[in-house]
Amino acid sequence: MISPRRSTARVQIDRIRGGESRTRPDVVAVEEPLEIRLQLSSGAEHQVAVTMRTPGDDFELAAGFLHGERLIAGRSDVTEIRYCTNVDPQEFNVVTVHLRPGASFDPATLDRNFYTTSSCGVCGKASLEAIEVRGCSPLPVGGVRVDAAVIRTLPDAIRERQKVFDRTGGLHAAGLFDLSGELLELREDVGRHNAVDKVVGHALLGGGVPLPDRILTVSGRASFEIMQKALAAGIPIVVAVGAPSSLAVDLAREFRMTLAGFATAEGFNVYAGSERLEI
Amino acid sequence: MISPRRSTARVQIDRIRGGESRTRPDVVAVEEPLEIRLQLSSGAEHQVAVTMRTPGDDFELAAGFLHGERLIAGRSDVTEIRYCTNVDPQEFNVVTVHLRPGASFDPATLDRNFYTTSSCGVCGKASLEAIEVRGCSPLPVGGVRVDAAVIRTLPDAIRERQKVFDRTGGLHAAGLFDLSGELLELREDVGRHNAVDKVVGHALLGGGVPLPDRILTVSGRASFEIMQKALAAGIPIVVAVGAPSSLAVDLAREFRMTLAGFATAEGFNVYAGSERLEI
Repeated sequence: MISPRRSTARVQIDRIRGGESRTRPDVVAVEEPLEIRLQLSSGAEHQVAVTMRTPGDDFELAAGFLHGERLIAGRSDVTEIRYCTNVDPQEFNVVTVHLRPGASFDPATLDRNFYTTSSCGVCGKASLEAIEVRGCSPLPVGGVRVDAAVIRTLPDAIRERQKVFDRTGGLHAAGLFDLSGELLELREDVGRHNAVDKVVGHALLGGGVPLPDRILTVSGRASFEIMQKALAAGIPIVVAVGAPSSLAVDLAREFRMTLAGFATAEGFNVYAGSERLEI
Repeated sequence: MISPRRSTARVQIDRIRGGESRTRPDVVAVEEPLEIRLQLSSGAEHQVAVTMRTPGDDFELAAGFLHGERLIAGRSDVTEIRYCTNVDPQEFNVVTVHLRPGASFDPATLDRNFYTTSSCGVCGKASLEAIEVRGCSPLPVGGVRVDAAVIRTLPDAIRERQKVFDRTGGLHAAGLFDLSGELLELREDVGRHNAVDKVVGHALLGGGVPLPDRILTVSGRASFEIMQKALAAGIPIVVAVGAPSSLAVDLAREFRMTLAGFATAEGFNVYAGSERLEI
């Protein structure tokens, strides 16, 4: 885990309470762009994306992002990930993922991929079809089950570990849990999709994707994008502290995922896949 | 204001409380992709972007987005906005903005624009410079002032008007206020950037951009992207109910905007531009 840049920054603020103003130091969550590049074994390099993220775990973010976009199939496609040293002094905001000879990626895939992303916009149904085109199948339902009481423990479990949030109030979190509710990894980021890419990327670089016996918990809302990333990682159960969107529900039902929302210690709502729950 | 699609959808859920499960109807916020296209007076058409949004006010969203990206300079560049009728039955998810003959847009600008977006990723400083390259200047400081007591009323003012949030718990809101704290427009969306595009687009189509005597209030956090959109619309004051990011603070300071965060009825933090405040 390489975190060469700070995730928080100190700023001077004016704190207004009623009619009084007081200047004091404060801490904000760092947001900076990360450019992700792919380098083929031939040496050819492709710019893939720029995301506004909180620095830290950038290699995991890059790996998780590329896997979520189906640009790499797994750990074995990657020979090396490094910061670009030729863009000094900004070297920590550009990451290059080096692919092995014979990795499934080809540049046309990149074009097609972005075309898919751009043109899947015709309707929600077309978006879901685009995911199938990108190689995702419905997840198996048999086998994996989780106790509802476990799910009720997850929101507090991530909240207790959100260290940067505690200092800044400004970050989303994503946590990867096993079926007994043990927290395996937690990442925080100004972008909720980045937090998910970081936990998935961590698992990927450890060699362990897909993740059929894991639960993804997010501190905020469950959007289409969050569900798409969980699906690409083969995670069957997503628990959101906030609300799901209609397309998140559609995706969960279409791909046989379990989606819980408004999760608290008291209870939660199940929008899809209740067959994986033991009440 | 054209809202041909619903902003909420009914779903059946299982509501879990303690050890009990009950099936009941619920309401979720609709999320669907919107594809934005530009058509030149020559008839040439360009796909510009796809955003995941809550249907409704799509023309305003398209106009606000294009203005924020500096692809149109103002209302007079636009002759017509319409849903694409040649993608039936999905016509309400594709919007084409028709430009007048002689509008400043040219396709190379579009390429450059996306190049800027992709390559601004080197560092936060480069991102700020990229905004200047795109034609944004620091805002004038003199003249516009707002009472701190007004700012303290804004969070409740938008919260009271968040009708879809009340039903779904799942939307961000953006409100445009005058300097006396009167709410002029409010929009809700699953994407906070879309909510901002919609209120700016509404003002733009009414002929009134830039907006030097307006306050933008957002229900969530203030990111770089939110500040960039406010800056492009010439809005000098941004009030966030949530936390700002480091780059949002940097942008506000660089472009002489006023940025308040963690706003409540009791008070708020000022991260930049306190000279516009009367305490």
